[in-house]
Amino acid sequence: MREIAIIGIGQTSVDEHWDKSLRELAGEAVFAALSDARRQTVDGIFIGNMLSGILNRQESLGALVADWTGLKHIEAFKVEAACSSGAAALRVAMMAVGSGELDSVIALGIEKMTETKGADTTAALAEAADADYETPHGLSFVALNALVMRRYMHEYGWSHTDFAPFSINAHANAVSNPYARLHEAITEKDYQRSRMVADPINLLDASPIGDGAAALLIVPTDQLYPHNGRGRPLITVAGSTASTDTLAIHDRHDPIWLAAAESSAMRAYAQAGVGPEDIDLFELHDAFSIMSALSLEACGFAERGQGPRLGLDGDILPGGRIPICTLGGLKARGHPVGATGIYQIAEVVQQLRGEAGETQVDGARIGMAQNIGGSGSTIITHILKVK
Amino acid sequence: MREIAIIGIGQTSVDEHWDKSLRELAGEAVFAALSDARRQTVDGIFIGNMLSGILNRQESLGALVADWTGLKHIEAFKVEAACSSGAAALRVAMMAVGSGELDSVIALGIEKMTETKGADTTAALAEAADADYETPHGLSFVALNALVMRRYMHEYGWSHTDFAPFSINAHANAVSNPYARLHEAITEKDYQRSRMVADPINLLDASPIGDGAAALLIVPTDQLYPHNGRGRPLITVAGSTASTDTLAIHDRHDPIWLAAAESSAMRAYAQAGVGPEDIDLFELHDAFSIMSALSLEACGFAERGQGPRLGLDGDILPGGRIPICTLGGLKARGHPVGATGIYQIAEVVQQLRGEAGETQVDGARIGMAQNIGGSGSTIITHILKVK
Repeated sequence: MREIAIIGIGQTSVDEHWDKSLRELAGEAVFAALSDARRQTVDGIFIGNMLSGILNRQESLGALVADWTGLKHIEAFKVEAACSSGAAALRVAMMAVGSGELDSVIALGIEKMTETKGADTTAALAEAADADYETPHGLSFVALNALVMRRYMHEYGWSHTDFAPFSINAHANAVSNPYARLHEAITEKDYQRSRMVADPINLLDASPIGDGAAALLIVPTDQLYPHNGRGRPLITVAGSTASTDTLAIHDRHDPIWLAAAESSAMRAYAQAGVGPEDIDLFELHDAFSIMSALSLEACGFAERGQGPRLGLDGDILPGGRIPICTLGGLKARGHPVGATGIYQIAEVVQQLRGEAGETQVDGARIGMAQNIGGSGSTIITHILKVK
Repeated sequence: MREIAIIGIGQTSVDEHWDKSLRELAGEAVFAALSDARRQTVDGIFIGNMLSGILNRQESLGALVADWTGLKHIEAFKVEAACSSGAAALRVAMMAVGSGELDSVIALGIEKMTETKGADTTAALAEAADADYETPHGLSFVALNALVMRRYMHEYGWSHTDFAPFSINAHANAVSNPYARLHEAITEKDYQRSRMVADPINLLDASPIGDGAAALLIVPTDQLYPHNGRGRPLITVAGSTASTDTLAIHDRHDPIWLAAAESSAMRAYAQAGVGPEDIDLFELHDAFSIMSALSLEACGFAERGQGPRLGLDGDILPGGRIPICTLGGLKARGHPVGATGIYQIAEVVQQLRGEAGETQVDGARIGMAQNIGGSGSTIITHILKVK
């Protein structure tokens, strides 16, 4: 496949955007990415989105966005893989450019979740789980994660407070990110006192939903002028892989191990010719704090059952061994589900360009992002490099 | 892009499958395609589906199908482009194989519409239209098409009965197709007497919804043994294009012309090195009889405003100049929306293999399929050839 570069990024803030329609949010991100890349147009747009049909009563997002952005007649579809829809759209964009079918493509992620025409957002999110064997029992998505977290604490002897550093780090890193939903730093005491949602998951273990859109403009590297003509680092996609696992957690051999994360990460490392020790920062999928621990373990940053240790030892901080959620993560940047995977990649690009502001990781050259759909049923890993 | 061959097809009947879940329908089509291709596995599955989130309360179809078919860990996403979701999934599958990312892929189309957990199917289908500017006025999808048909009849002076041949042909061709939803031939009198739905569209102008799944297994031609080792014709994809248009009909310069069909078809002809005169059969998107006329015109088979003439002259019959809907079309095979685009391609493959039974088009070597999403807002054209 042709080598691919990300030459433009665009983001809206994650917020309650009651004054903006789905198409307006999309346009904001698309125009920002075009402008960032100094381009006027692209050949295609692939849109990561999970819930527009249920919450916004709108499907056909491809035509909607192509039409609204004045790019009509281009190829444009929606791609859905639950909360990993964003990275799935990037996968499709990569294959479109990699195959030579299209020469420049935008991967857009969008979700509008806080104004829902009467639909039940919690029930909608549960559609990422198994509609025949999980949700009929009344399990919400947070409840499924609570079962996983409880079992993990039991197996490895961690207390709830041991997970606090994940949330504290995410909140601290979001304070200076203008696109983040939450700008309040939190303390361990805040974490402990937070309202219970589904035992043992409390409000500060859980990422907030939100409205937002983010876009990436990709092209084949061989069609770029040297250094993209901008004097800024050229960012290439060195690894890109997707894996699936059982849809229902109860079908897994080990429900507290993310097999698809392991499989996806190991193949991405091989593609990029790197290992966990080479990764300068990792935008992981901290929808719930337990997921941070499981991701770090499956990707080889911690031994099995030892993920929380990286938080307790400060390894995940911007100056640590493996900085995570450097601009707030899902926990504090916010989790507009189908858009999240694109926000993660845009943040890695910010870091590799040296444009991450107060939480810049010094000398970052290789960054990783991992987007998780369902209870780990679809996991997509990208590794970006400064070329 | 690598040349791509379709080496396996699988279909369930289109019906009210109340005894089969979404995953069971998907499995039936996937296993049939694997068996038809004499393969055990594939590297990826891309799933065309529009309404599972709304009607079946299930997203994350990629993981669902990969899991159920025992192909877990493979790459698998859902692709949505309203009623053109099926062909959109084939586009993504083509790019996955064409890029070299994956070597064998199934494009699956699936929809389960007749058992809907309380959701309103008519409202769900209207999500293919503009949720801000069309549906708030109370327009259903059939109502939008009725406005188009009424205007077309006014502009070009056709009567309602002039459209009868489209429905009569489709119903006649479905009688011997075991996968078709309706097996009753109809007469012009039946057509005229049929119950009105949205004037001028009556029940026999409109395609029936249904439950169904269809699958195509594609591989790069250069990885096949000569003639696929089966002694049957090798079918390659000679043209594959997607175009978008405005989402809302009122935004179009000419609301009774399918600009995206023209753009998509002209590029597909150029890719395949053929013209309309070379096409042996055309599986077009007859969701409503007016769409048959508009498709034939946009793709160069009839002059502007003269589509119904091809029906009246018998050109669209299996032995005619440009046979359409040779196994029933949307009108009589049925229209399980996200699956339809894959059924169309599977039917073209049946024709090119000489396996279409009583409605076989003699000597068919080049076939075309066109899948339409929304009111012509996404249009995808494929041209297949016997190599």
